[in-house]
Amino acid sequence: MTSLANKLCELKTRLREVSDLNSAGDVLYWDQATYMPPGGAEARGRQIALLARTAQEKFIDPAVGKLLDDLQPLAESLPFDSDDASLIRVTRREYEKAVRIPPDFLALFSEHSSAGYQAWTEARQANNFKKTIPFLEKTLDLSRRLAGFFPGYEHIADPLINFADYGMKTSTIRKIFSELSGRLVPLVQAITAQDPGDDSCLKQFFPEKQQLAFGEMVIEKFGFDFSRGRQDKTHHPFETRFSSGDVRIATRIQENDFGDGFFSTTHESGHALYEQGVDRVLEGTPLAQGASAALHESQSRTWENIVSRSRPFWEYFYPELQKTFPDQLGSVSLDTFYRAINRVSRSLIRTDADEVTYSLHVIIRFELELKMLEGALEVKNLPEAWNTAYLENLGIAPSKDSEGCMQDVHWFGGQIGGEFQGYALGNILSAQFYEEALKARPEIPLEISGGTFDALHGWLRENIYRHGSKFTAPELIERVTGKGMDIGPYIRYLWTKYGGLYRLP
Amino acid sequence: MTSLANKLCELKTRLREVSDLNSAGDVLYWDQATYMPPGGAEARGRQIALLARTAQEKFIDPAVGKLLDDLQPLAESLPFDSDDASLIRVTRREYEKAVRIPPDFLALFSEHSSAGYQAWTEARQANNFKKTIPFLEKTLDLSRRLAGFFPGYEHIADPLINFADYGMKTSTIRKIFSELSGRLVPLVQAITAQDPGDDSCLKQFFPEKQQLAFGEMVIEKFGFDFSRGRQDKTHHPFETRFSSGDVRIATRIQENDFGDGFFSTTHESGHALYEQGVDRVLEGTPLAQGASAALHESQSRTWENIVSRSRPFWEYFYPELQKTFPDQLGSVSLDTFYRAINRVSRSLIRTDADEVTYSLHVIIRFELELKMLEGALEVKNLPEAWNTAYLENLGIAPSKDSEGCMQDVHWFGGQIGGEFQGYALGNILSAQFYEEALKARPEIPLEISGGTFDALHGWLRENIYRHGSKFTAPELIERVTGKGMDIGPYIRYLWTKYGGLYRLP
Repeated sequence: MTSLANKLCELKTRLREVSDLNSAGDVLYWDQATYMPPGGAEARGRQIALLARTAQEKFIDPAVGKLLDDLQPLAESLPFDSDDASLIRVTRREYEKAVRIPPDFLALFSEHSSAGYQAWTEARQANNFKKTIPFLEKTLDLSRRLAGFFPGYEHIADPLINFADYGMKTSTIRKIFSELSGRLVPLVQAITAQDPGDDSCLKQFFPEKQQLAFGEMVIEKFGFDFSRGRQDKTHHPFETRFSSGDVRIATRIQENDFGDGFFSTTHESGHALYEQGVDRVLEGTPLAQGASAALHESQSRTWENIVSRSRPFWEYFYPELQKTFPDQLGSVSLDTFYRAINRVSRSLIRTDADEVTYSLHVIIRFELELKMLEGALEVKNLPEAWNTAYLENLGIAPSKDSEGCMQDVHWFGGQIGGEFQGYALGNILSAQFYEEALKARPEIPLEISGGTFDALHGWLRENIYRHGSKFTAPELIERVTGKGMDIGPYIRYLWTKYGGLYRLP
Repeated sequence: MTSLANKLCELKTRLREVSDLNSAGDVLYWDQATYMPPGGAEARGRQIALLARTAQEKFIDPAVGKLLDDLQPLAESLPFDSDDASLIRVTRREYEKAVRIPPDFLALFSEHSSAGYQAWTEARQANNFKKTIPFLEKTLDLSRRLAGFFPGYEHIADPLINFADYGMKTSTIRKIFSELSGRLVPLVQAITAQDPGDDSCLKQFFPEKQQLAFGEMVIEKFGFDFSRGRQDKTHHPFETRFSSGDVRIATRIQENDFGDGFFSTTHESGHALYEQGVDRVLEGTPLAQGASAALHESQSRTWENIVSRSRPFWEYFYPELQKTFPDQLGSVSLDTFYRAINRVSRSLIRTDADEVTYSLHVIIRFELELKMLEGALEVKNLPEAWNTAYLENLGIAPSKDSEGCMQDVHWFGGQIGGEFQGYALGNILSAQFYEEALKARPEIPLEISGGTFDALHGWLRENIYRHGSKFTAPELIERVTGKGMDIGPYIRYLWTKYGGLYRLP
């Protein structure tokens, strides 16, 4: 046993080095996205790539595999949910994944992604989809080859989905999305048959400094710990974690649109509350992060939407907001403001979409990428397929590809497949978890209307956050809700909220 | 020759990785000193240490030594000052130094330095020198052992001096410092026999934002390129370089003291102009940095003192400063302001010292550390020796050790020996180089009084900055001035300036 204890200690030491190298890369990325002067870009790309490669080399060292083999009996002798059994189990999964992908292939893909990103930036500006075709075709080829390193899949997208959402597969998600779409399309139709409402109160001049201060005051009340984190400004909001004691968010402020910055801040704070809530004993291991992309997104959407776009929330905070912006909002009623931040409309751009239509944007992309991977849709026909899908699902189609199939960077600067599903699954899970939280702590809405969040935050920390990625998403959903993923709570949530707002039957 | 070209290419690839890992560590340090929340400290220390160790491992790889051996004929076939010959020559020097120090010793020393730093922080607060004695004794022992890895020295401090100021040695520096001290002590006595003058105009309330903006306006005029750098706030001002396109400074602002922040900014901008001016073809190699600590300091002192504390400089900028702070300075004359920023006084704290007394603070430390290394001064007797030296050289002695021998972190958080000399040598060199610049470009003072710096900056870039560390400090001084280091220009500079200010005979 002493020998096993030593091996476990050695494994943890090696994993901590991998984690520290990855965190160093994350610091360099954070700096690039917040403060780095333009002249730093060239060297920075190289430096980040070097750190990623060095971390990868250390992780796929055969000595790690040997330690995992030797520790297997220990894992089997311990309870499934013990920290050490989970560490060995999850690390083995990650290790077996990592060793299958040749480092040269990773480097090639990474290089192609940079070139594709560059091409996309220029092509989108010029609204010239044609120029991206050769890049996308190569991306598709590389994505298929990447999946090919994991033979035995049911659908070619499954291995790609497993990278971000381990334990999910295409057939399950397709079924869920088909149900979800079937329930969302009529809801969108019912809502958009009404007057969408007026959100002009949000489109006034709101000085940056006060916007930032207001957002930070709110997320500190959520429970974001500023002694273990901070907020900065960036172009594309994100959350990042350097250690359990340093979890950061970056937001974007638009001085002519209050909603953009505020909901970016609360969205990213949800990711950050998750990361700050992971049990500190998991620090430096692959367990010290959220369980999956969908799980992570469920938390950002909980705090952004279920909390920050709710009526109880603004009953407390709207008077504060009016005090902060008396000229802009002093004479705007809570009702008007609440309708404005929850205005639903058929729109073209996913990242600007409201809560109701958002998942449809994601489902459209998910289906298109599956078809490309299956070989049922050629890259050159993507714009047509995109426009048709938008018309069918959202009743609106883009007049140019820069507002259509070129709007998201994902396919152009990364892989095709496996990156979109989490955004819609997160919405579903946010409502499913929130329903459980309400069963356990029915006082949550009342607390929120008093500007405190201890019950909700405490429940999430206890049931989700602290576990990090000890459990897969399906395991965690089962532990928390007693069943599998279920769209019911999300549909009920939307109908209740928007049924009221738009006086639906 | 093709084979040699390939080997040179491989050497550069390996060196670039070492450089990138070190730069990554520098980014992490920069973040720690500027934006990191307190909770991040523990993991950050570990991450920085890991990057340093990984870079060191890559550098001392025997394959690097083999490449250097194989490339020796190439180096010998090229002109001494060619980029490639310099690269091979300087890298060999660094390599031979690095492989002599056992990695375990480095780790031990680094660990002891952290403990010593911690002990110093607490002991200084409590003014309790006794508590630091065991730490300092071990530091002294480790410093001697470090020197011991480089046998054949003339003085035990020589190897330590060589780390920061390659090509200098104790006997040379002692001789220079003895001359310098002999000239400075009477100057200080002559000045301090007069009324020191009034600097109360600097001690008013100057809002941080305007201070920062004014400083940045000035250094941009110096030639600091904000597309390849930036300025942030910190506790202890510093300059750092992540690549040729990303050179940053960090300053400290005190709202009740204009001088502290402004001269920190111009000081650090001097370091940064040097780093931004290194020829870009040297990027990613050991040549892409300043030639030595003294050379670096000569540039920070040039821009801080020779330029920013000069009368021509303020003839142009003082009206600008008055516009920025009309309430504070509107009725203060240029004469009063100029005297205030050049006020000379006998003081205890090195980092607050004026231009005239500053070098004496450094010489005192240099002599004391030599004596400790020689075994002529025991650690326990340091306070007494310190106070005696201050009284002799500056005519003032501290009443407590926290304002005496415990004021600087150097000995407590690093090695004893080799780290102080550069501060005084830099002063000497700043004046020596400036005299050369004036010979070549006599229009410099006139330009400065018009708020432009092209002639000075251009001359420094051409003669010093672009070479990086292709040449050692002694080689560079010889190239630039045609002779060795000479205190003459510095003494002339001080007598001319302060003779006028204090009406000396």
